[in-house]
Amino acid sequence: MKNEDLASAVDWIAFDADDTLWHNEPIFQATEVHFAELLSAHQPSTVIREKLFSTEMKNLKHFGYGIKGFTLSMIETALELTEGKAKGSEIRQILDWGREMLAHPVQLLDGVRETVEILARDHQLMLLTKGDLFDQESKLARSGIGDAFAAVEIVSEKDAATYRRIMKRHAIRPERFLMVGNSLRSDVLPAIEAGAVALHIPYAVTWAHEQLEVPEGDGALFSRLERIADLVDWITARNRREP
Amino acid sequence: MKNEDLASAVDWIAFDADDTLWHNEPIFQATEVHFAELLSAHQPSTVIREKLFSTEMKNLKHFGYGIKGFTLSMIETALELTEGKAKGSEIRQILDWGREMLAHPVQLLDGVRETVEILARDHQLMLLTKGDLFDQESKLARSGIGDAFAAVEIVSEKDAATYRRIMKRHAIRPERFLMVGNSLRSDVLPAIEAGAVALHIPYAVTWAHEQLEVPEGDGALFSRLERIADLVDWITARNRREP
Repeated sequence: MKNEDLASAVDWIAFDADDTLWHNEPIFQATEVHFAELLSAHQPSTVIREKLFSTEMKNLKHFGYGIKGFTLSMIETALELTEGKAKGSEIRQILDWGREMLAHPVQLLDGVRETVEILARDHQLMLLTKGDLFDQESKLARSGIGDAFAAVEIVSEKDAATYRRIMKRHAIRPERFLMVGNSLRSDVLPAIEAGAVALHIPYAVTWAHEQLEVPEGDGALFSRLERIADLVDWITARNRREP
Repeated sequence: MKNEDLASAVDWIAFDADDTLWHNEPIFQATEVHFAELLSAHQPSTVIREKLFSTEMKNLKHFGYGIKGFTLSMIETALELTEGKAKGSEIRQILDWGREMLAHPVQLLDGVRETVEILARDHQLMLLTKGDLFDQESKLARSGIGDAFAAVEIVSEKDAATYRRIMKRHAIRPERFLMVGNSLRSDVLPAIEAGAVALHIPYAVTWAHEQLEVPEGDGALFSRLERIADLVDWITARNRREP
């Protein structure tokens, strides 16, 4: 690949983090399976997981996103499903899972390292993620790809206003800003609403809260790739069309 | 006060949030008192509070700062001090305290509202705080003074590198940047190390983790005010000396 192919129609490429750059949802889902097993004497697995999800949703306005809030929601769910009879050892186990999730090795998706290294030569890269500030910074530091990013923005919610604010802060024209992520709800649709270019790269599994059908007609407003390893080619082809 | 008195020797004034703009530490300390009462059948109050503090410090590298991590540390401490025999109702009580802390009304310190309104006329104001992103944004939104701030920076740690990064991001010359806060460790000394101007406004109580003696000689490097209500006069007087 020649560098001039990448001299770009977009100046900035922003990446979502969880399930776009590194694996995340499987860590939550594995913990949910363990959690359902822990309480299996009290309720069937589906009831436990539904109750956990509804507790998470109820707590979202207090806790925001992230592992600490998820851990608190697991403890609350365990107390409710056992009518307060959860054992100390069970609560202890939930605390341990929370800490293990926070310390879990950061596993990049296939192709991420090479892709960000190539793209960083000719673009400003941004990490743009919601979630817990401390946890996301820790993951970026442990990811080994932190140096590729010219900017890191960790936000409490990703809506169109957030994208406008971020682009304004960095003096980026929306049509020169590409958002890449696995969530239609958080990465693709609000970025488009803010006038940016968006690219959807679905992950194998999606958290129920992020699941969304594409509104009729909106499918034409953004592109989709199967895997991030194809991103450099996609950008190169796009730049040939829109130099 | 005439506006030209405030045409400023500093362009940016950054404020710490907790215990600088609004009351915070008393909310934690009141919860700690309740927590010690809850476990008083198991251990004396001083042992409980020491154990809670050491658990918090141990967890800081996993959890960062904030109420969610504090709540998880309270639960862990309760399980340890009762050898796993804490009742479900007690854990439930701790969870409720956490949620109450997160929903606690934001109470501004005396003089804050007037001070930021006056200073915002002739300066760029920044909120610069560490802690939980979601919780701090929520408090700023509920504070009623959010519009006074041209920038909001919520960071995971306040060291000299953080101050340098923030000033660079906003293209601020360090000598034109004033940091105002109640913590010597987080607000004053690292800001000075980064070349900025710093003003210490102590709060009535300080979290043990933030307590610090001023290093010999460093006392001459920054000023101290008793209350934020005196800040406008202090800046006016300073500008007359260093226009």
